[in-house]
Amino acid sequence: MDPVKLKSEIENRMPAKRYEHVLRVMETSVRLAKMHNLPVEKAINAALFHDIAKAMDGALLLSIMEKENVDSRLSNFHKELWHAPVGAIIARDEFGIADEDILNAIRYHTTGRTNMSLLEKLLYVSDMIEPGRDFPGVDALRELAEESIDFAMGACIQQSILFLVSKKVPVFPDSIDCYNDHVKGKTTKD
Amino acid sequence: MDPVKLKSEIENRMPAKRYEHVLRVMETSVRLAKMHNLPVEKAINAALFHDIAKAMDGALLLSIMEKENVDSRLSNFHKELWHAPVGAIIARDEFGIADEDILNAIRYHTTGRTNMSLLEKLLYVSDMIEPGRDFPGVDALRELAEESIDFAMGACIQQSILFLVSKKVPVFPDSIDCYNDHVKGKTTKD
Repeated sequence: MDPVKLKSEIENRMPAKRYEHVLRVMETSVRLAKMHNLPVEKAINAALFHDIAKAMDGALLLSIMEKENVDSRLSNFHKELWHAPVGAIIARDEFGIADEDILNAIRYHTTGRTNMSLLEKLLYVSDMIEPGRDFPGVDALRELAEESIDFAMGACIQQSILFLVSKKVPVFPDSIDCYNDHVKGKTTKD
Repeated sequence: MDPVKLKSEIENRMPAKRYEHVLRVMETSVRLAKMHNLPVEKAINAALFHDIAKAMDGALLLSIMEKENVDSRLSNFHKELWHAPVGAIIARDEFGIADEDILNAIRYHTTGRTNMSLLEKLLYVSDMIEPGRDFPGVDALRELAEESIDFAMGACIQQSILFLVSKKVPVFPDSIDCYNDHVKGKTTKD
């Protein structure tokens, strides 16, 4: 699809503020992809589509997840997690994205998972550190992302879990698997 | 077994400081059991045996775990977790403890798990708040334990996970399942 038309299709599916976030994630992804020798085109597509289902109604998300046999454990967790697998389905079925690595990056951008690819980590990290994000420690994550996507991913998933647990929010098991990968594999900075 | 002889058997299997901890866990368990109408005898046995394998060598723990088909995921996590399932095996095979609830309390006292019984929670909490423990927040946990074993368990597993993740220590998946049970079931204080 023509890039201008594609962006307009995506813009039409979400509120303006969400679309601005998508563009910032894309810019961050492209910058980091160039820095770490990842294919820029893949980074662009993963970022553009990552929140395409974010504005969809919870009941609709659930019905698509059920129809498409998405991991049924997800439906028992908070609905903020549901737009990720559904976004991958929409990118594939409505926009013809066939690259499984891009689809997985979209699919796992909220939870993380074990054995993430570099592109999956790139999107997860970019989503968390894009310039519109403002939380304690975000600048340290930004610096780490310039050094290593692996280090940054380890620090981002650690930070996410600390945030969720401090707020008594459930943690999807894939996120702990992801965290364990990083601390066991020592892909953390220290 | 005669209680005096039993205590002496347990004392002989660990350093003096560890045995003092066991006695403090027992005293805490008994006090909380009386307070919350749990069988005192079960609380005593769970507490007495909970660290019986704590002083054993890591390689020996691993070989017993393998022989007895203990959850194989545990061997990939830190060895501080291994004495719990092995302790349950020793309590059963060498001391004739047949009560599955007591054995499960011993087995899951380091990780927690989903759907814990009250006795399992009682031991987990007692182990964490016995009078020898000293960490920020322990007094709040002690107060909560007088109010409700469920609330205290929710707060204890939350605190454990926050501690482990802040130190970049792997978290066994059962612990997150346990945490999720509590925050989803709202068996937390607020």
